[in-house]
Amino acid sequence: MATDTLTALLLLSCPDKIGLVSRISHFIFERGGNILDLDEHVEADGKRFSLRVAWDMQNFSISPADLNDAFTPLAREFNAQWNISFLEKRQRIAIFVSRHDHCLQEILWRHSMGEYAVDIPLIISNHPDLKPLAEHHCIPFHVFPISADNKQQQEAEELELLRKHSIDTVILARYMQILSPQFVQEYPVNIINIHHSFLPAFIGGDPYKQAHQRGVKIIGATSHYVTEDLDTGPIIEQDVIQISHRDTVDDLKRKGRDLERLVLARALQFHTEYRVLVCGQKTIVFQ
Amino acid sequence: MATDTLTALLLLSCPDKIGLVSRISHFIFERGGNILDLDEHVEADGKRFSLRVAWDMQNFSISPADLNDAFTPLAREFNAQWNISFLEKRQRIAIFVSRHDHCLQEILWRHSMGEYAVDIPLIISNHPDLKPLAEHHCIPFHVFPISADNKQQQEAEELELLRKHSIDTVILARYMQILSPQFVQEYPVNIINIHHSFLPAFIGGDPYKQAHQRGVKIIGATSHYVTEDLDTGPIIEQDVIQISHRDTVDDLKRKGRDLERLVLARALQFHTEYRVLVCGQKTIVFQ
Amino acid sequence: MATDTLTALLLLSCPDKIGLVSRISHFIFERGGNILDLDEHVEADGKRFSLRVAWDMQNFSISPADLNDAFTPLAREFNAQWNISFLEKRQRIAIFVSRHDHCLQEILWRHSMGEYAVDIPLIISNHPDLKPLAEHHCIPFHVFPISADNKQQQEAEELELLRKHSIDTVILARYMQILSPQFVQEYPVNIINIHHSFLPAFIGGDPYKQAHQRGVKIIGATSHYVTEDLDTGPIIEQDVIQISHRDTVDDLKRKGRDLERLVLARALQFHTEYRVLVCGQKTIVFQ
Amino acid sequence: MATDTLTALLLLSCPDKIGLVSRISHFIFERGGNILDLDEHVEADGKRFSLRVAWDMQNFSISPADLNDAFTPLAREFNAQWNISFLEKRQRIAIFVSRHDHCLQEILWRHSMGEYAVDIPLIISNHPDLKPLAEHHCIPFHVFPISADNKQQQEAEELELLRKHSIDTVILARYMQILSPQFVQEYPVNIINIHHSFLPAFIGGDPYKQAHQRGVKIIGATSHYVTEDLDTGPIIEQDVIQISHRDTVDDLKRKGRDLERLVLARALQFHTEYRVLVCGQKTIVFQ
Repeated sequence: MATDTLTALLLLSCPDKIGLVSRISHFIFERGGNILDLDEHVEADGKRFSLRVAWDMQNFSISPADLNDAFTPLAREFNAQWNISFLEKRQRIAIFVSRHDHCLQEILWRHSMGEYAVDIPLIISNHPDLKPLAEHHCIPFHVFPISADNKQQQEAEELELLRKHSIDTVILARYMQILSPQFVQEYPVNIINIHHSFLPAFIGGDPYKQAHQRGVKIIGATSHYVTEDLDTGPIIEQDVIQISHRDTVDDLKRKGRDLERLVLARALQFHTEYRVLVCGQKTIVFQ
Repeated sequence: MATDTLTALLLLSCPDKIGLVSRISHFIFERGGNILDLDEHVEADGKRFSLRVAWDMQNFSISPADLNDAFTPLAREFNAQWNISFLEKRQRIAIFVSRHDHCLQEILWRHSMGEYAVDIPLIISNHPDLKPLAEHHCIPFHVFPISADNKQQQEAEELELLRKHSIDTVILARYMQILSPQFVQEYPVNIINIHHSFLPAFIGGDPYKQAHQRGVKIIGATSHYVTEDLDTGPIIEQDVIQISHRDTVDDLKRKGRDLERLVLARALQFHTEYRVLVCGQKTIVFQ
Repeated sequence: MATDTLTALLLLSCPDKIGLVSRISHFIFERGGNILDLDEHVEADGKRFSLRVAWDMQNFSISPADLNDAFTPLAREFNAQWNISFLEKRQRIAIFVSRHDHCLQEILWRHSMGEYAVDIPLIISNHPDLKPLAEHHCIPFHVFPISADNKQQQEAEELELLRKHSIDTVILARYMQILSPQFVQEYPVNIINIHHSFLPAFIGGDPYKQAHQRGVKIIGATSHYVTEDLDTGPIIEQDVIQISHRDTVDDLKRKGRDLERLVLARALQFHTEYRVLVCGQKTIVFQ
Repeated sequence: MATDTLTALLLLSCPDKIGLVSRISHFIFERGGNILDLDEHVEADGKRFSLRVAWDMQNFSISPADLNDAFTPLAREFNAQWNISFLEKRQRIAIFVSRHDHCLQEILWRHSMGEYAVDIPLIISNHPDLKPLAEHHCIPFHVFPISADNKQQQEAEELELLRKHSIDTVILARYMQILSPQFVQEYPVNIINIHHSFLPAFIGGDPYKQAHQRGVKIIGATSHYVTEDLDTGPIIEQDVIQISHRDTVDDLKRKGRDLERLVLARALQFHTEYRVLVCGQKTIVFQ
């Protein structure tokens, strides 16, 4: 990875005060960086400043390896939470699936089209069903059947595998097991789930059946970061589709599949392009 | 109202069995009626048949006044719930409002454009604020301030007024009072409310504030028939709009206004064209 | 294919007159058919009646083989264009592709999910690129390179292959060649194309580039039947997506891919469920 | 208008080069301005930089009156097209209408809700029909009937009136006359039209009839700046709605009304918040 083709990406959040944009853009400018994209947001209550800025590292006077140290004094002064990444440094993604193939299919197809700048070194499942699909894409497929008895042990082995492959982000592509709090804590704000309802409506199991029983005229899907509380993590992306009384629960499942895969695909795109900043229970998605 | 320009409208629901469409269309045909529109639906579980059929009464051998009696034997044989209306017989609508004008404005404007074949003989409010708007449209405006003490008495007087004006349907156009069960029972499946959320998400008060706190990426509005349980009546129509982290609660209210008025306007259209059939907690909307 | 599990499907169009629904539903009823779905439409000018009706052949007194003959007298009396099909009799589909895989991928995936009641005995392409995808789905893949010199001859061989496989419908899944009028005439109203614009805007080549140059805020995709005139056949389905000034032509292509595959997939669904009736330059899509 | 409550708004476009964001944000910072919102965009071909930045003038060391002069040297150095406005300085808007009331109604209602920070000192029409609506909102209404003979003279008088009222922007809210090139040149990029189709489809007259004849499945509306060429000016906003074969031309007009008023209302909002930057035939809309 040649330094001169890198794009630096700073995500930063801190208490608002005068001069933040100027100070940060000046930090970049005086070291020879050309800003490609800058988006900032101040919460309406005026207390929280958030920023995403991308710049070209060509001609930058500081090496990528030294950039964190160089920026630390400014970040300390601003009392900021922050993170610098490089767009060209590919995130490493593990996908968890069960038996439904549509979300996995969608992500692997988009990956093959070059839509995600990521590596996908492994797929993990509690069922063997989707092994052929993984093989078609030449991605190792690991089966960890889960029962009440073996869950703790299996999760430990999964985590071991993730560590071994230096996984940054876990995608739950209709993975039908609930991860333990211990597992979730290993990947804070780095596990992305797709829930097949318009959260917070229809939390929990069988949301399409719940939607059918309630007689709603629209169904939705929600992609969110996984926290220890079920279906209540920060929402990254949502979308909906119209339905009618003619639709059975099976029709909702069929229509919902199209939503689920598109919503998860977009959430993954936002995440891998470092567009998402989590603030408490909510996200800022810089677009 | 000349008989020969009437359009008859039958809404019917009964246990499914063979020959229902044939028997009903034959009933119309053999009396000289020309079917203009017919839509039917059988629940996927195969047990419930629903139908909406419209026909031209010109050349029909039975008078509008005798039509109910003529159809009764067939309806009894089918063990049906049913209702025959005439599209040209204008429903009589009362609108209840509080201080927000957008839903009232929308309905009165559409009414002025001739979109609804209804009469609106009165508007009722618990506040005097929207009197000028009512006057601009030359519709009598009645103020009934509501407090814990006088609610029962005021509702009784409102009902008296509705009866006096032969009101068929009550529209709650952002009316910020909860009607008592006694009031609701007087107009079963004939009180239409607009709730400013995508039900069943954010039931109850301040749904935009709830939505903002949860950090959803889409907000919605729901029009439903009022039952004795708050915000749980059969849903007629829903719609949504995308929001972002930039939107404050006030932005949600502003964007939501556009949703609320369009969703309520469509629900009223479906209702006045006899397109809505209520089945338990759900509706069939023939479109 | 057991007769007693068949669903008959009549599509019919004729001059409007009184009693059409009654006569047709009675034809079905008196022979023991149970109507599952009936939808009809009369053009607002009152001159053209169109109908789609599905019924259960179980207990029907006429065999599927004799049904056409039995219905012919009624159809003649009505001066109707009509067609009776059986939902369970799988249509035979050939897919034409070039180098883009997204539409082919989408159709094959939906087919694998059981969304289409069709057989896909072959895929034809002017390039070898998508052979592996076809093989993954175990569908024979035939390559016919096209040049100005060999087009007539290659099309003749393609047609020979289609006839040999008893193909009912041809899907152009981003097939980048223009079929000759001679080819089109062999499959009237049975060749479905996906055009990557919101027709009639941006007819012809490079529609995304045209859209980018014009500065539109929304792009679309259109699925239509192929006629001898380019991009002007009857439209089956359209959809759109919002774009912004940030989107390059490549972004439009990426976003457009999602539209193209969903729009083509829905058009194919409508076509294979016999929901589409062509009236001159327009379609009626019964939903 | 107190200086200390002003929000300055800079729109700027220039050839891209390193340090633009830094230099501009530093200009603001070193004079005591607090940046509230900053959005920038570099055309993918890398040659054109565009920026919208808003800052709080409280504590700013330069008075609003001197701000243009102070920024001029920087703008010259960058070879920029630019404009500084103050959000609180209300734009002055004239609305042109004919007989359709829906767009006028929508704008006046939103104006009454405080959605636009503008003054609307007059409405101009070629018909007297909408005078009562203007009067209900207490806005002077001027009638200028237009014929082939008097067009030049009437436009001259209209322009005189606009100048007298210091009008900044003209809104054509379904004004059914074509303005002469001479008129258009008086308000470059400051006349906003609503066209009742999804441009560039169905340019010219009767677009709903054109859409009905073509059999499209979606109709649209487009708001754009008026240039001397009909319906080809830079597009500000577009939206669409689904239709079906059931919709007559009158239905399209009715559904289209809802589109037209929302699309025009949004375009006006973008324009009055200085979010629109015109680049040749296209717009950048900062959101």
